[in-house]
Amino acid sequence: MGVVINLDEDRTKVSPLETLGNHVANDLKAVNALILRRMESDVDLVPQLAGHIIAAGGKRLRPLLTLGAAKLCGYRGERQVSLATCVEFIHTATLLHDDVVDESNLRRGQESANALWGNQASVLVGDFLFSRSFELMVEDGSLDVLRILSHASSVIAEGEVLQLMTTNDTQTSEDTYLEVIKAKTAQLFAAACQIGAVVADRPPVEETALKSYGMNLGIAFQLIDDVLDYSAKQATLGKSIGDDFKEGKISLPVVLAFRRGDEKERTFWRRTLEELDQTDDDFSHALSLMERHGALKDSVERARHYGSIARDSLGIFKESEIKSVFEDLIDFCIERAY
Amino acid sequence: MGVVINLDEDRTKVSPLETLGNHVANDLKAVNALILRRMESDVDLVPQLAGHIIAAGGKRLRPLLTLGAAKLCGYRGERQVSLATCVEFIHTATLLHDDVVDESNLRRGQESANALWGNQASVLVGDFLFSRSFELMVEDGSLDVLRILSHASSVIAEGEVLQLMTTNDTQTSEDTYLEVIKAKTAQLFAAACQIGAVVADRPPVEETALKSYGMNLGIAFQLIDDVLDYSAKQATLGKSIGDDFKEGKISLPVVLAFRRGDEKERTFWRRTLEELDQTDDDFSHALSLMERHGALKDSVERARHYGSIARDSLGIFKESEIKSVFEDLIDFCIERAY
Repeated sequence: MGVVINLDEDRTKVSPLETLGNHVANDLKAVNALILRRMESDVDLVPQLAGHIIAAGGKRLRPLLTLGAAKLCGYRGERQVSLATCVEFIHTATLLHDDVVDESNLRRGQESANALWGNQASVLVGDFLFSRSFELMVEDGSLDVLRILSHASSVIAEGEVLQLMTTNDTQTSEDTYLEVIKAKTAQLFAAACQIGAVVADRPPVEETALKSYGMNLGIAFQLIDDVLDYSAKQATLGKSIGDDFKEGKISLPVVLAFRRGDEKERTFWRRTLEELDQTDDDFSHALSLMERHGALKDSVERARHYGSIARDSLGIFKESEIKSVFEDLIDFCIERAY
Repeated sequence: MGVVINLDEDRTKVSPLETLGNHVANDLKAVNALILRRMESDVDLVPQLAGHIIAAGGKRLRPLLTLGAAKLCGYRGERQVSLATCVEFIHTATLLHDDVVDESNLRRGQESANALWGNQASVLVGDFLFSRSFELMVEDGSLDVLRILSHASSVIAEGEVLQLMTTNDTQTSEDTYLEVIKAKTAQLFAAACQIGAVVADRPPVEETALKSYGMNLGIAFQLIDDVLDYSAKQATLGKSIGDDFKEGKISLPVVLAFRRGDEKERTFWRRTLEELDQTDDDFSHALSLMERHGALKDSVERARHYGSIARDSLGIFKESEIKSVFEDLIDFCIERAY
């Protein structure tokens, strides 16, 4: 093991996500192959459009969580491959439906499926991937997995609707914001980790621990994502910034800046985010208000809080390389902010 | 039994759909209650929007097929209630996503969910109902049912994408049109009927027979639906006509009129349906071309063909009231055209 650690120290540029990928390299290869095979359809547009978004350089974070969790639980079979594929299909379906939702023009620096093929095709191919995911689960045959992922899916949809209701509403509280990101993002992280324990047939305490790890990692991940939309760092990831501001999305940096601001500032937030009446200078003014109130810095602090819970939830597992990687992943998700 | 037949003769205004509803009245009541209970969510917009489309006077045709099929198979348990609810949730989800697809403004004579709440909410509430449907199936616990309905769902999505690809394409063949309606409509009819046999644990021959009944009834149903969009009868159902024409949807009446028309007529179809360059008089000209070539009449004939197959597929079941109702349902679906 010492050798491996030395290697890791030599390759300081390798992210925990890549390290995780290396630990489950064969599984990940099998997942990528299965994704390609199961998004096939006689209707050409289906694999075309699905391939565009799935092949668009996704980090495969969620399926990697399933593969890693199964390994952490000592599972030696092969079921994790198709279940990780299910998780990625559900994630991709929500991305496609999100494109409709957000009318976003950029996803991962490429033109979105929606911009290329339109709302209608994005919705339908999302439906296809979603259904295909359930077909794969049925083939696997575990009602427990089906229960976990069908529940996660309906919670995700509820979270997205709740987000829609909070959009342009500066009254949104931090609690409601948290509810949204737990549902729309963290729930799938939690399910992805949990099913790793389920396939390994581990006792409930390990299942619960991995579920908690995923949930809290997911919350931290989304918090940082929302910070990045107001951060110059984002540009280096090939993503545009200011999208949330343009749409009037109420993320934590806004919640904090609004609550900590004076009446004049709140008038600014109402005009720009509720009425969407924005001028060219408004975004940089928003950034300066967030700076003044430490809204971005404190959003990162909140992420650290959930990161700590995620770390502690791993406490019941004995030390292993994969456990270390799972721990490193928490810091990695949070340090994206810098 | 004679008494019942006499009663039916007296009440000539009662449609076979109502008769079917009366035969499974308690089940249908339970389905309606379960629909209301399971579309609940802490996120208010979810039941609001779902309630709008589910309560909008749907005929509950598909869940009635499940309830009727279970009864036809002599099933005496209660599982058909939640499974019929699953079928209705999937159907409703596709309607919601169809609203996005078709940019339609009217559904069943009311304002569509999409027009009232927007694309985004319709997509997400559709996703919610879809996921909720799978949660219900998991609670029921039959992997067979899960297999049938997850497969049906992905076929439906493929069919909708194929329809999207044929829209505005006057080259679309009758075969491709058939493929579309089998996938987007008939597949769910087939699944709805098949799971009636599955819960009753009947031998494969009955399962296959009911699946075939549903498939062929569904094809006939969609053929007539497509005829109705060019028929004055449609108006009396509270639906607008000419929507398909406006969108350039290639349904069988168009396929037949185009193939039977001369070059001048084909130029007309290309201008109106491919380029969507339409004047006020074009729809009535389209109707006259269809009349000239017997396109509507022959589309109804095609529907009769599939209706006959549906009828014969019921042959293996012994005579019963519910079997008669299933037979009458075929004629009812087709006679809507007049």
